[in-house]
Amino acid sequence: MANRKDISRAVIQRIPRYYRHICDLQVEGVQRISSRALAERMGLTASQIRQDFNCFGGFGQQGYGYNVAKLKEELADILGIDRGRTAVLVGVGNIGRALIKNFRFGASGFRLLCAFDVDKTVIGTEPGGVTVRDTAELYDYVSRHQPDIAVLTVPRGLAPEMARTLVAHGIKGLWNFTGEDIHLEGLGIPVENVHFSDSLMTLCYRVDQADEG
Amino acid sequence: MANRKDISRAVIQRIPRYYRHICDLQVEGVQRISSRALAERMGLTASQIRQDFNCFGGFGQQGYGYNVAKLKEELADILGIDRGRTAVLVGVGNIGRALIKNFRFGASGFRLLCAFDVDKTVIGTEPGGVTVRDTAELYDYVSRHQPDIAVLTVPRGLAPEMARTLVAHGIKGLWNFTGEDIHLEGLGIPVENVHFSDSLMTLCYRVDQADEG
Repeated sequence: MANRKDISRAVIQRIPRYYRHICDLQVEGVQRISSRALAERMGLTASQIRQDFNCFGGFGQQGYGYNVAKLKEELADILGIDRGRTAVLVGVGNIGRALIKNFRFGASGFRLLCAFDVDKTVIGTEPGGVTVRDTAELYDYVSRHQPDIAVLTVPRGLAPEMARTLVAHGIKGLWNFTGEDIHLEGLGIPVENVHFSDSLMTLCYRVDQADEG
Repeated sequence: MANRKDISRAVIQRIPRYYRHICDLQVEGVQRISSRALAERMGLTASQIRQDFNCFGGFGQQGYGYNVAKLKEELADILGIDRGRTAVLVGVGNIGRALIKNFRFGASGFRLLCAFDVDKTVIGTEPGGVTVRDTAELYDYVSRHQPDIAVLTVPRGLAPEMARTLVAHGIKGLWNFTGEDIHLEGLGIPVENVHFSDSLMTLCYRVDQADEG
């Protein structure tokens, strides 16, 4: 088993994908799956899967495949999604509202405590059952309740200063949808920068290649 | 210069990131940048950048850095975002509406022609200036206008059949937000499956690691 610090970013980013597929398999009633069948489903190779899982100590008996329920538990434990982490969301615009109403935070390990916005007509409303507070109270709230992460869905220009101030008040990680790349790794704070444009540009490239193909 | 078919998925997925940062640099008035400075900004290494760019023939003169305007042009050409590609969006719920109103399709190489929904109260409206049509007309519209890609923001259960039917009517690629993993590479159709949960679970893992730090 590799030391956790030595596991590459690429492997770590595949773990959520494994977890998603294993959850789906469980819903479908599958109890056991071979690395080969899992690979086919995910568009990977069986050896890639075995190699990835070996970073965390294996999980399977050669020739018997993986026990789906057990694998789900082990992946959940690796990801830490059973630790009762908490989140706040800042910026209840279109994307913020879409996340509040449609995204299952719980399935990814977080309870969304509340949201913040500056718009007086939105403050006090409860979209999807989540209370929207005044952004003026944000830092005080973070100091008092110590949520683990903040979801940033504010306008791009506000992102850098807000990120730094949130960290100064105790935030441990950022899920950033603002379009501004934020890097706080120097402070030991992980940031996941979500850029929709990256996947659309990748699609553009791939459509081009398929056209020429 | 590598044959385009041999360039790894990992390299291709970094190209949009390079392009984004180069666009930002141009806006900031930067005319020339070294691989080292670009690396620092992006959280990569200079040798990684040089290696990636070499897949496409280089772009820089050793010791002189990259000309920002020229690099932007070359990356745009590689991505194919200047080909006048077109898109339709299916499903004007929260996430569909967020994309229509806030996402700059043009900056990623696509013109959004129109959107589709089944809700009679939404059909005929024009959020963000984009006309919403009846989903009943979707396949006929695709046959007649031949948009390059479809953006899927419909409920998850509808995704697989809709994807296949769209392809049968001439769609060349899918940008899929439904949460259902769609693989049509066997048909030569690229699909970018967007899973918000993957980045949040990755953040969960990274917050855990930082905690144990």
